[in-house]
Amino acid sequence: MRIGIVGGGQLGRMLAQAGAPLDIRFTFLDPGSEPCAAVHGQHLQADWQDPEALNTLTATCDAITFEFENVPAEAVERLAERRPAYPPASALATARDRWLEKSLFRSLDIDVPPIARIDSQADLDTAVAEIGLPVVIKTRTMGYDGKGQKVLRESEDVAGTFEELGGVPLILEGFIDFDHEISVIAVRGRDGEIRHWPVVRNEHRQGILHRSVPQVAHPLQAQAEDYASRVMNELDYVGVMAFEFFVTAAGLLANEIAPRVHNSGHWSIEGAVTSQFENHVRAVAGLPLGETARLAPCAMLNVIGAFPERDAVLALPGTRWHDYGKAPRPGRKIGHVTVLAADDETLETRVEAVETLLVNDLG
Amino acid sequence: MRIGIVGGGQLGRMLAQAGAPLDIRFTFLDPGSEPCAAVHGQHLQADWQDPEALNTLTATCDAITFEFENVPAEAVERLAERRPAYPPASALATARDRWLEKSLFRSLDIDVPPIARIDSQADLDTAVAEIGLPVVIKTRTMGYDGKGQKVLRESEDVAGTFEELGGVPLILEGFIDFDHEISVIAVRGRDGEIRHWPVVRNEHRQGILHRSVPQVAHPLQAQAEDYASRVMNELDYVGVMAFEFFVTAAGLLANEIAPRVHNSGHWSIEGAVTSQFENHVRAVAGLPLGETARLAPCAMLNVIGAFPERDAVLALPGTRWHDYGKAPRPGRKIGHVTVLAADDETLETRVEAVETLLVNDLG
Repeated sequence: MRIGIVGGGQLGRMLAQAGAPLDIRFTFLDPGSEPCAAVHGQHLQADWQDPEALNTLTATCDAITFEFENVPAEAVERLAERRPAYPPASALATARDRWLEKSLFRSLDIDVPPIARIDSQADLDTAVAEIGLPVVIKTRTMGYDGKGQKVLRESEDVAGTFEELGGVPLILEGFIDFDHEISVIAVRGRDGEIRHWPVVRNEHRQGILHRSVPQVAHPLQAQAEDYASRVMNELDYVGVMAFEFFVTAAGLLANEIAPRVHNSGHWSIEGAVTSQFENHVRAVAGLPLGETARLAPCAMLNVIGAFPERDAVLALPGTRWHDYGKAPRPGRKIGHVTVLAADDETLETRVEAVETLLVNDLG
Repeated sequence: MRIGIVGGGQLGRMLAQAGAPLDIRFTFLDPGSEPCAAVHGQHLQADWQDPEALNTLTATCDAITFEFENVPAEAVERLAERRPAYPPASALATARDRWLEKSLFRSLDIDVPPIARIDSQADLDTAVAEIGLPVVIKTRTMGYDGKGQKVLRESEDVAGTFEELGGVPLILEGFIDFDHEISVIAVRGRDGEIRHWPVVRNEHRQGILHRSVPQVAHPLQAQAEDYASRVMNELDYVGVMAFEFFVTAAGLLANEIAPRVHNSGHWSIEGAVTSQFENHVRAVAGLPLGETARLAPCAMLNVIGAFPERDAVLALPGTRWHDYGKAPRPGRKIGHVTVLAADDETLETRVEAVETLLVNDLG
């Protein structure tokens, strides 16, 4: 069994690491000369849309998956015509357009923050008048980790914003009063079976995920699972999907989905019976899904922009080190540390010890 | 960092899988054309003693380790002259000779079953007269998984045995009355720090390991750790070592050591904070050792000679599948299944369910 992955970054790398014990092989389609996943399989160096490369991928692989959502629709369709390719093109298309995504949530009775579709400065002026400041404006497509967005706080911030962001389709989101952010990672098999991991409490810094801690008794676990299942069933989804929420006094407000394995699920490599990576591989390959229970209290801390002293981290109790094999650059995710402990109190002490060593450079 | 491994079987394969998140690369020296570890690194196809291959290994790798103990002493010395090579030659030499091994145990006040050194039929006759039947006769070197040995039950079995086993140096071991077999996996760093995993209760079938279950409260844990530490310190050992014992009414009787990662430690991949494979890599690479605590009740079942229906195993709760990428052949270890559960009772039920599916062919 060989799985083709469109993209050769750390998510592809960790998918290959998860597939290795199952004796599944991988091919990565990536235009880079040395994408970090390439050490774990074959590398097709070509543009995502290169017809010859796509043909090679379908000719040599049994199933195809994607490491990110910004895959051109033509490429996805070309692949799906010839091989099982998951998640489906419709899921990728929805997830990469913030307006389509929020509209899907609303159609499934999933609450979202106040939003408005912005196709002109006039739209923006109207929406700000209705919703009030502050708001955040984001491009409908592309952009991640806080890129491609702008916060409007004062009325003088509003004028010219549409042009400033490139005159492209935008979405306006009202600020909401939330207690914390969570995500639920879920997986759906080819047969429609769905499993969820415990919800994860996430802490961001400068818009980039800093820390994720799975919660085994979060009061909104059932609601998060229900929402994730609605979306996956609606999209006839196959594979792992992450769903991010704001936790408010009124319950969950949907932020966004990621149609792939997700940074907030990295803890599951060591911390769950089956990791998000293995279950994504199982789902794409058509295998039965693995159990998603948490094995022990744990947390994941991102390594961003610069490495801490590795050996100092490894010397701390309960730490596991993930180096993505990427050159450090400000704001770039280059690794993560999983911290495990027998109880929550010990975990907190251990996480603090790791945080003291981190030298993240968020750019 | 690149580690050279002498041997390219499943132990090398799982070492490479454990090293991947640490961004450590591997080169395997193996005479086979497609050893199963080769998918995870570079493969030097040559005899273990090939001088050119050994030179390439030391020229391209930062440290060297071994997948098995039957490495020619000259090869080990040649490697160790140029690069850190662990475990040390003395440990390999001791572990591959059953008489040297048992003599070491005795010199460290570690109890062993009745034994005798057999260099002739006369030695054998004398030892049988002293120790009494039944006894087991083993070649001093080579042989594993029940190969290269013979049980003498009746006095007519004794005559001609020395010739029958090839006229090579032998060791005679008296039968002992034991309750069960355990092993302790331990790791020693370059700095002399030692860590032990919980002892493992092992069940063999036809001399081949069938099942291993780590025990978090075994009454002889401390004695097993003490014995393993004595041996490792005496040998100035670096890396993972397994130590097998018989549990008797009088305590532990030492059976044998394996100077490498060991089948009875495979459960630690999912079941411990840090696996035996990762800690062996950490030790050989000179990194701090990871925590060895068990994360959850778990068991390891070997897949031998023939694969069960994979998807049926994966569909059972709590199972993780390890396919070594080897062609099935009677008696050959081709994979294993790890079973995890939240409590011992559930574990037992789950293990029984997996055992029902196994179709092992022990040959």
